[in-house]
Amino acid sequence: MSLDGSYDPDNIFAKILRGELPCVKIYEDDVVLSFMDIFPQAPGHVLVVPKEAARNALELSDDALAAAMLRVKRIGNAVKAALAPDGIMIAQLNGAPAGQTVFHVHFHIIPRSDGAQLAMHAGGKADMAELEAQAKKIASFLD
Amino acid sequence: MSLDGSYDPDNIFAKILRGELPCVKIYEDDVVLSFMDIFPQAPGHVLVVPKEAARNALELSDDALAAAMLRVKRIGNAVKAALAPDGIMIAQLNGAPAGQTVFHVHFHIIPRSDGAQLAMHAGGKADMAELEAQAKKIASFLD
Repeated sequence: MSLDGSYDPDNIFAKILRGELPCVKIYEDDVVLSFMDIFPQAPGHVLVVPKEAARNALELSDDALAAAMLRVKRIGNAVKAALAPDGIMIAQLNGAPAGQTVFHVHFHIIPRSDGAQLAMHAGGKADMAELEAQAKKIASFLD
Repeated sequence: MSLDGSYDPDNIFAKILRGELPCVKIYEDDVVLSFMDIFPQAPGHVLVVPKEAARNALELSDDALAAAMLRVKRIGNAVKAALAPDGIMIAQLNGAPAGQTVFHVHFHIIPRSDGAQLAMHAGGKADMAELEAQAKKIASFLD
């Protein structure tokens, strides 16, 4: 799917936002829902999903984008405090050729370690108990 | 350099912001300076540099972060209009293990094409005339 097209209200993240599919939740408010990526590119890979319906960041409203980015920073700092990574990549992918696989706008927060390669996205499903533990630890730094 | 440390006011982007080093400028206002990456990971690789002195996005003030992100969206849409890429990756790297090479906060806007691999950062210096032409074309969509 290219950069242009229409929003599909039955994409996976829309279903998670509506509570029709489960997620390992870290944080939720009126602006975003944040949960663990179940196909992590690195341990502690977090997603921040704006609630506004938009295919990508280029189409998100200014208000929703600015508000979402402040949540990305806050949750990113919680990931830093919880997991003590050497670095953190924030990525926001627009269009399939850029690596976007779900066509509801989202931000990736990916902890990076010295010398560790990034796993291919959707390389393998994470252990759910491990994701629950990571989510709980990250959320504890948001209080 | 890890996620913690102090800001070095003599980093390359600080020097560009002060006008002590040149850049191929696309856009400037009171919040950001945007210019072409001279070691592009793909053709049309643009940088958006907040003027506030901070090593990374996790340390940037909320006001500067939100305002910078709106510029990233606006310039990203100009890149889309000017270069018609198949996709656009927005990346913001925090700490050397995440790929950060200049320790003043910045956002990457990287056009992506179907099937094209991303070049290694700093893989090769771009042709300056080509960068000037790209910058001029992108800027024309910001008017």
